[in-house]
Amino acid sequence: MKIGILGTGVVGQTLGEKLVSRGHEVRLGSRSGSGGSGAEWTAKVGAKGSLGTFADAAAFGELLFLCTKGEVALEVVRLAGAEALGAKVLIDVSNPLDFSRGFPPALTIQGFDSLGERIQAAAPNARVVKALNTVAAPVMIDPAKVPGEHDLFLCGNDDAAKGEVKALLADAFGWKNFVDVGGIEASRGTEALLPLWTRLYGRFGSPLFNFHIARSE
Amino acid sequence: MKIGILGTGVVGQTLGEKLVSRGHEVRLGSRSGSGGSGAEWTAKVGAKGSLGTFADAAAFGELLFLCTKGEVALEVVRLAGAEALGAKVLIDVSNPLDFSRGFPPALTIQGFDSLGERIQAAAPNARVVKALNTVAAPVMIDPAKVPGEHDLFLCGNDDAAKGEVKALLADAFGWKNFVDVGGIEASRGTEALLPLWTRLYGRFGSPLFNFHIARSE
Repeated sequence: MKIGILGTGVVGQTLGEKLVSRGHEVRLGSRSGSGGSGAEWTAKVGAKGSLGTFADAAAFGELLFLCTKGEVALEVVRLAGAEALGAKVLIDVSNPLDFSRGFPPALTIQGFDSLGERIQAAAPNARVVKALNTVAAPVMIDPAKVPGEHDLFLCGNDDAAKGEVKALLADAFGWKNFVDVGGIEASRGTEALLPLWTRLYGRFGSPLFNFHIARSE
Repeated sequence: MKIGILGTGVVGQTLGEKLVSRGHEVRLGSRSGSGGSGAEWTAKVGAKGSLGTFADAAAFGELLFLCTKGEVALEVVRLAGAEALGAKVLIDVSNPLDFSRGFPPALTIQGFDSLGERIQAAAPNARVVKALNTVAAPVMIDPAKVPGEHDLFLCGNDDAAKGEVKALLADAFGWKNFVDVGGIEASRGTEALLPLWTRLYGRFGSPLFNFHIARSE
């Protein structure tokens, strides 16, 4: 399918390369449209990869990923534009991280609020699904990099959209175990994993880990 | 050993009953010293259980648990008193939950701060170890209630204290897998699990679950 990725950083390029390798057409969106290191990315992935502005990428994709830093995510949604976003599935991978005191970060949005909810409010017709924000980029596209059973948390208001996201992440990346935490307000829970995730990353010295929920079935 | 438990709610009573059954002497501390439902608890657990004020329980124990609601935890530490707390190991089980908008709660303390850190600051000589705050009471005392591999997060500034806590929780309750997240400031990470934990509880309809960190060893 045609997929638009908002953000040309490590996450956006990693997801984009893998999606192209799985046969999808991918357009990476950036502020300028020529996308910094995007030229190297297109040279690497070949003809199925292209670059554009945020609005170009949003218009191109039948399904969209939001992969920018949390601090600019809402601006990027505005730049993409309501018309291009339409009622598309928008997978929100961003996290509202506060690095103002270095590593590990805190959250810039917390309590009875979350970045996921603000993104849904900024794109009210889009079907926002928060997902992949609780794992590192190499794990996003290859969960088998982490041994054993482990889970991908996702949430969003539209059950059909969550179903589409699960199907894509299973088919393109190999995800098997999903934990649906509820509506988009459950982003308050999954974004709040980051203060622990970043500490574990520091302790382990590797991002190749993930959460699993153990319970009776 | 002699153990003081600050708080006579479900968590304090559950931990206390199990510790008595494992041969420990336990004093439950409350504001009044006669401890609400504490009388029923002492009748149930027998001669090795006793009641007292927060200061009584703190003075009694060679090791202490703090099991009150987060909103009163700092006051309880003050009532226990610096002299009784001494340099004892204080296992902080409390969470700074904000139920002002119902369930699920948010956190009252977050960002570059945590309740664990405030408790350590309020009892600077005590060796505070944050632990057990990420599982429900039935799981605290019997981790086998959750099938499969799963982990207990703990943190604190004193490595020897963390070692003592692991040994007690292994011996008394059967915990096998610990994830040491770092110093007491890592409470920012483990307390932040609660917004997700409470949502999962709502989704699953059972508190019999726990987190596991999957990773390469």
